Amino acid sequence: MYFHALIPFKPVNPKTRLSCILSQEEREAFARTMLNDVIASVLRSGCSATLLCTHPFSHEDALIAVRNESLNEAINWALGQFRCPALIIMADLPLVTAGDIQRLIRTEKDMAIVPGRGGGTNIIFLKNPRCFRADFYGASFLDHMAIAEECGFSVDIIDSFRMSTDIDEKEDLVEILIHGKGRRSREFLESSGFTLAIDEKGRVGVQRNAHKETL
Amino acid sequence: MYFHALIPFKPVNPKTRLSCILSQEEREAFARTMLNDVIASVLRSGCSATLLCTHPFSHEDALIAVRNESLNEAINWALGQFRCPALIIMADLPLVTAGDIQRLIRTEKDMAIVPGRGGGTNIIFLKNPRCFRADFYGASFLDHMAIAEECGFSVDIIDSFRMSTDIDEKEDLVEILIHGKGRRSREFLESSGFTLAIDEKGRVGVQRNAHKETL
Repeated sequence: MYFHALIPFKPVNPKTRLSCILSQEEREAFARTMLNDVIASVLRSGCSATLLCTHPFSHEDALIAVRNESLNEAINWALGQFRCPALIIMADLPLVTAGDIQRLIRTEKDMAIVPGRGGGTNIIFLKNPRCFRADFYGASFLDHMAIAEECGFSVDIIDSFRMSTDIDEKEDLVEILIHGKGRRSREFLESSGFTLAIDEKGRVGVQRNAHKETL
Repeated sequence: MYFHALIPFKPVNPKTRLSCILSQEEREAFARTMLNDVIASVLRSGCSATLLCTHPFSHEDALIAVRNESLNEAINWALGQFRCPALIIMADLPLVTAGDIQRLIRTEKDMAIVPGRGGGTNIIFLKNPRCFRADFYGASFLDHMAIAEECGFSVDIIDSFRMSTDIDEKEDLVEILIHGKGRRSREFLESSGFTLAIDEKGRVGVQRNAHKETL
């Protein structure tokens, strides 16, 4: 069986909610690092990968399609090209493992879906993508469940902390430092001077070492 | 095999980070409702339950121990009473299912642990609790992993979105409305007038219906 992964990726000025602690150049490097973690797990799971990029980009281990339209339009364009099962996976899931992805592609259902926090969708696996359409915005998990029902798809909802953890905000970096052993994304944060910081109420955050920041 | 669950519970003025949208009386009712969801899943999984309460409290389906000391001291006192495997589970995990808990109690390792978001620990299962000590504060996941190593325990890290989702803040209520089908906690929120609200950036939150709020 042949599986193909679609990974939307924004190489220019990505992850703007991290602007408070990372410069644009750093955010671009960090987004590429998270992408590399995702691609490594995708390839180890047995899938090949195509990046749907908003701007020109190159990568040794993936095909590239540069698309000017919105995220959903780019995904739906790509789904129309497929004649094989498709995995739609976000580029900001550095904790995902190859075994995690295999949980999806080995499903007995027509579709497997991983919710993200806050009503989102982080990963979708479709055995027959042609009827499906992506709707990544707002409460996309509920929207994707409704579209699956329209398609008559049986659905496997995959319960996973690692795959539900997308990295958007400063607090999300805690998850990489704590659970990201062996990931390039953790190495990136550590070499950029990030460490855990616990406030007086016992809440865990990250802080950046001023010395390394200026290097 | 006999399993016993320890559930720390604060009946008076709990969940203060929800004060922005729930009165003290409502927070107490909501905390009891989440507790009932947790107890129902604990009992269905085959465990019995003891509540470690900060104040006098009664419950039809659980034993009660009222303890004046801190959370960790209360848990460690209770672990010392045990001569059977123990499940320490937080009371604010309304999405947990009986099957989820069985993933822990069926582990082949000495201990199973479920991380919460932000470095926390949401559930611990211990086959032989006596050597262990709880340290629920700050980056407790890393602390519990270190204590397990001191005890010489093999550890199963359980990857679960449902079990990692503890309810502390307003945004967390989104998870109950979206993923809490069949839970009393979702019924509570719906009957209190809470619905999903999507802002102009596509982010999902909750809003409260003003009419129901005044009922």
